[in-house]
Amino acid sequence: MNPGKFITLEGTEGVGKSTNLIHVRNWLEQRGIDVVVSREPGGTPLAEEIREVLLAQRNEAFDAVAELLLIFSARAQHLAGVIRPALDRGAWVLCDRFTDATYAYQGAGRGLDKAMILQLEAMVQQGLQPDLTIVLDIDVETGLQRASHRGVLDRFEREEVSFFERVRAGYRERAAAAPGRYAVVDAGNPLEDVQRQIDQVLERLLPEQHSSEVL
Amino acid sequence: MNPGKFITLEGTEGVGKSTNLIHVRNWLEQRGIDVVVSREPGGTPLAEEIREVLLAQRNEAFDAVAELLLIFSARAQHLAGVIRPALDRGAWVLCDRFTDATYAYQGAGRGLDKAMILQLEAMVQQGLQPDLTIVLDIDVETGLQRASHRGVLDRFEREEVSFFERVRAGYRERAAAAPGRYAVVDAGNPLEDVQRQIDQVLERLLPEQHSSEVL
Repeated sequence: MNPGKFITLEGTEGVGKSTNLIHVRNWLEQRGIDVVVSREPGGTPLAEEIREVLLAQRNEAFDAVAELLLIFSARAQHLAGVIRPALDRGAWVLCDRFTDATYAYQGAGRGLDKAMILQLEAMVQQGLQPDLTIVLDIDVETGLQRASHRGVLDRFEREEVSFFERVRAGYRERAAAAPGRYAVVDAGNPLEDVQRQIDQVLERLLPEQHSSEVL
Repeated sequence: MNPGKFITLEGTEGVGKSTNLIHVRNWLEQRGIDVVVSREPGGTPLAEEIREVLLAQRNEAFDAVAELLLIFSARAQHLAGVIRPALDRGAWVLCDRFTDATYAYQGAGRGLDKAMILQLEAMVQQGLQPDLTIVLDIDVETGLQRASHRGVLDRFEREEVSFFERVRAGYRERAAAAPGRYAVVDAGNPLEDVQRQIDQVLERLLPEQHSSEVL
């Protein structure tokens, strides 16, 4: 049995993560792959409880380190309860956001020390990394405009444009530093172009037998 | 203005923390000290939300690292929102449990690596340590018997006797390694003896002017 692969989808508000997550899931399932779709923060009932604490609007100022630790707590739970068991049984895991989001939002966005995030990443992931991270990239104004139809905004969605500019730059910087693992896709293009580009990236991740099956 | 002092009260189930917390608060207030009483996990509305997630009974197994990170998240919030501001304005902080509980419960009790707790302690406390930690010590069976009148038990209170034996040993080990900061009080003694011993310890913490005020 081949071990499963771990794919993460990243991007700022309004890049089309939800739509493209479904597209990736369908593409993989059409090739007979057992896919577990999940999201962060969250992915287990307990981790979803933590997600609610993270996203809720309240008057009390949220300490940035407290926020960071809460995110990694949910991640540890998600890894133990969902991600590792799925990969171990050979399933592929497709996750809406993962640790790149932490570097982008808490690191670049909030200005937290990268060394702190690195320490927590090592503690929680014990070396586990996604095999592929698709970064959907769009200029921030366009993304926010696309996302503006959403109803009530959560604590992150209410940040200022300059915050999302830093987040976007954070994603691009990480992708540029390790191009082997990342695929940056221009999400400003028409959806069919975006998805054609995603398909090409996925194709490279398939073992030989899967590729030949669909020829 | 003298900076405030930070006192923590520790111990396993049924040692009498609540009763003695009130005693310490009264003793300090009678000497004109501005005392902020708090508890961990918790101490701010957000940190109390995290406490609820920590203590709730649920079917899902709680990953030990996720639990550890959740505790330090609540601690970061508590430090930023309550403890540091109080100490900065010269108040004394009296807290029901703090990081010694993490070393005792998650370290000694659950067997988590001490190095991990040390890393998180450094990240969150940035060197801040209690000026005095009173460890109320009692043999585990007696403590559990005393605590048995409580109604619904939380996730920690439901642990086995052997878990609390490890927690107690963890507290004693930490106190023995740094006797300057800790006072281990035999909580199996009659309450008036326990409180007389606590008073002597507190006396040593007072600046000269306070001691002379009450002579």
